[in-house]
Amino acid sequence: MIEEKTVRDEELNEELLMELLERGEVETFREEFLSYHPYDQAVFYEKAEPEMRELLYQYLSPKEMALIFAAIDLDDEEYEEFFKELNSIYAADMLSNMSTDDAVDVLNNLNKEQVATYLSIMDKESARQIKDLLHYEEYTAGSIMTTEFVAIPQNSTVRSAMNILRNAASKAETIYYVFVIDSERKLTGIVTLRDLIIADEDTLISSIMSERVVSVSVGEDQEEVARMIKDYDFLAMPVVDFQNHLLGIITVDDIIDVLDEEASDDYSKLAGVTDMDNFDKGPFTAAKKRLPWLILLTFLGMLTANLMGLFEATLDQVALLAVFIPLIAGMAGNSGTQALAVAVRGIATGDIEEESKVKLLLREAGTGLITGVVCGVVVIGLVYFWKGELLIGILVGTAVMGSIFVATLAGSFIPLLIHRMKIDPAVASGPFITTLNDIISILIYLGLATTFLSQL
Amino acid sequence: MIEEKTVRDEELNEELLMELLERGEVETFREEFLSYHPYDQAVFYEKAEPEMRELLYQYLSPKEMALIFAAIDLDDEEYEEFFKELNSIYAADMLSNMSTDDAVDVLNNLNKEQVATYLSIMDKESARQIKDLLHYEEYTAGSIMTTEFVAIPQNSTVRSAMNILRNAASKAETIYYVFVIDSERKLTGIVTLRDLIIADEDTLISSIMSERVVSVSVGEDQEEVARMIKDYDFLAMPVVDFQNHLLGIITVDDIIDVLDEEASDDYSKLAGVTDMDNFDKGPFTAAKKRLPWLILLTFLGMLTANLMGLFEATLDQVALLAVFIPLIAGMAGNSGTQALAVAVRGIATGDIEEESKVKLLLREAGTGLITGVVCGVVVIGLVYFWKGELLIGILVGTAVMGSIFVATLAGSFIPLLIHRMKIDPAVASGPFITTLNDIISILIYLGLATTFLSQL
Repeated sequence: MIEEKTVRDEELNEELLMELLERGEVETFREEFLSYHPYDQAVFYEKAEPEMRELLYQYLSPKEMALIFAAIDLDDEEYEEFFKELNSIYAADMLSNMSTDDAVDVLNNLNKEQVATYLSIMDKESARQIKDLLHYEEYTAGSIMTTEFVAIPQNSTVRSAMNILRNAASKAETIYYVFVIDSERKLTGIVTLRDLIIADEDTLISSIMSERVVSVSVGEDQEEVARMIKDYDFLAMPVVDFQNHLLGIITVDDIIDVLDEEASDDYSKLAGVTDMDNFDKGPFTAAKKRLPWLILLTFLGMLTANLMGLFEATLDQVALLAVFIPLIAGMAGNSGTQALAVAVRGIATGDIEEESKVKLLLREAGTGLITGVVCGVVVIGLVYFWKGELLIGILVGTAVMGSIFVATLAGSFIPLLIHRMKIDPAVASGPFITTLNDIISILIYLGLATTFLSQL
Repeated sequence: MIEEKTVRDEELNEELLMELLERGEVETFREEFLSYHPYDQAVFYEKAEPEMRELLYQYLSPKEMALIFAAIDLDDEEYEEFFKELNSIYAADMLSNMSTDDAVDVLNNLNKEQVATYLSIMDKESARQIKDLLHYEEYTAGSIMTTEFVAIPQNSTVRSAMNILRNAASKAETIYYVFVIDSERKLTGIVTLRDLIIADEDTLISSIMSERVVSVSVGEDQEEVARMIKDYDFLAMPVVDFQNHLLGIITVDDIIDVLDEEASDDYSKLAGVTDMDNFDKGPFTAAKKRLPWLILLTFLGMLTANLMGLFEATLDQVALLAVFIPLIAGMAGNSGTQALAVAVRGIATGDIEEESKVKLLLREAGTGLITGVVCGVVVIGLVYFWKGELLIGILVGTAVMGSIFVATLAGSFIPLLIHRMKIDPAVASGPFITTLNDIISILIYLGLATTFLSQL
């Protein structure tokens, strides 16, 4: 729901609540605890020890726990763990008391047996609604929509619409948008509660509704939905099937979570972390999440070492060459990451569309050329003034130029290519592109050095 | 406003609109153009050539342009450019027709002379409201709030509250939250429109309002506000001064933009791009944004080269040593970036608080140890099987271990330190930490190699 109770004027008093729980003062505990916002209740629940949670299940009704679980955001394993503590009837009752979309969110984190058990115990109507939503593929509009919306026939009056709204008010996800449907449940318009309260009671809905409704198809990518809600400043968006039948709505609160997840996801991939750590977890969990990348990179690094081995003779002759390797590889890595970040975010925000890909590549080629030449000249100057070595300076500077140019192009080309192949471009993450650019730059540098070895 | 017209069932027909504009068919153009959502109108306006924009100013009223400018998101230079095209009276009229927060957003992008001019022409009441908001420091709650909210005295009835709402409906930013104030304008409660429409008309507001209102102080960081709205699923949040006087509200649509900006910002800094490029801009603009980082890194890279120069004798004796430098530096860079990303995001999302900093460092030390040992052992194995060099393998492996350990610690320590110093931890960006870790790892590696040179 997007307009929960807005209570809480002080920090939740953890100690007091713990004490009341332990002393078994049910009524006092409930009065104090339930006066907080469900999010604060959820934070308390999440931090509590298993014995404390056990007491919470006794003191709170399934309906009250439902609000807590709708506000919580846990890891997969935690969901399984917490649900194992609940008896199945309580859990099923709790799930049927949640908004369908929230219940589906929770169920997606449990294993199939658990899901089947709860659905079989639950009241039929809730189970049916949840099953309908569980069908939709993850990350589509269907998977994040809710079916608790208010729809009215287009031939209603404002008065009857308001009556429908009042009756639906306690259950609907939002009552601020009212969707107008025809006799076949096809979406024909939308009125906001703002429109309704300023209109005369006898006015026909069809005369005040907006007819050009922005809607999304049920199979639409959730990121695209998020972008539309962000651009258009909507509170909710209707979801329809290909024949324009109204299936559900997506509300802005869920969209904030999608945008946040998406941004975190792109960010972690740029850094080469499988997914962001939970800060309560120990070093083993953290290491487990980072090692896959690091080990992959160890192998890629050995490949780089292997390639460099081909130039051992050159390195043997002019040891000074080796000291510039980190500089050149670093410049290539950095310019590649810059280009990568621009391309990945551009694709994610929808700013880069199919037709602008070539334009982007040309732009990046130009950018790579300019940054390459500038940095190359700086390097020539630095090496010359520091070592007095003009020839080595020119060699290193030229390698920097070439490396930056190629790395910038690769940094934008690779995510575009991956996106073309319908894969999330963020998988071409930072460490991967950096290692690739290491290899390219070293080949350019040592290749040049070997060619002009006699001059050095 | 958070519930704009929800119209648009098809893509905006650019060509048709262009034609109508050029042919001067004012009425037809207006009818077609104004039937689209302001965001779509804004995209059309932004893409239009200067002559076309000139025509738009003639065909659209300042009030209609105000909606376009509220929906648009431009670069600083573009704002200045577009405003130069407008005559001052039109521009002032337009600004006074925008929500105060949107007008302030726009004015923050213009130069002081322009702002002063518009404020002096504008009607006094709008100018006063805007000036009040312009005072607040950037990135605070005050700077993103709007003063167009609905407040009712606590002794009103539901009936009178609904009347106030109906009158305010056309101007208020949201009418779905109604703020309850006492005779001194202090915030005492909140009622949602949902509560109002289901309550009996004669009920007193004080009996149905929530008294524990979550509010933010006017000087609060906008990111903290964003996090609260995200966690609590609010549509809007009241902003108060230190005596709890209601000053304004912040709505969810503005919060989405804050979250998005913040995420983009962290992301660009991890990649070492000053700020994300606009994709329409040419290579020179892009190069200008990337060069500061690259040139800084060139100097840091030269420092690395300088340090390596100290070990030239060692490199001269065992040329094979050089081929492992990119591997070791790469591993250090990557594990450092992983730790950095976790720390920066943790600070940004508020998951890492003051008291958990030491815990995080201990956790990261453990993580660095585990990942270091695992990768070190893998490297020893790889070097031994590939080159048959056990001693060199042990040397490289040990260097990898040490480098990963130190880099992981540095990656989490540095952002925490910077945060302590009240600076945005994201400035300890990816390229910077990577170069630092390059240096550390090379010192460890070549230091070890020089010490045990006689054994190699």
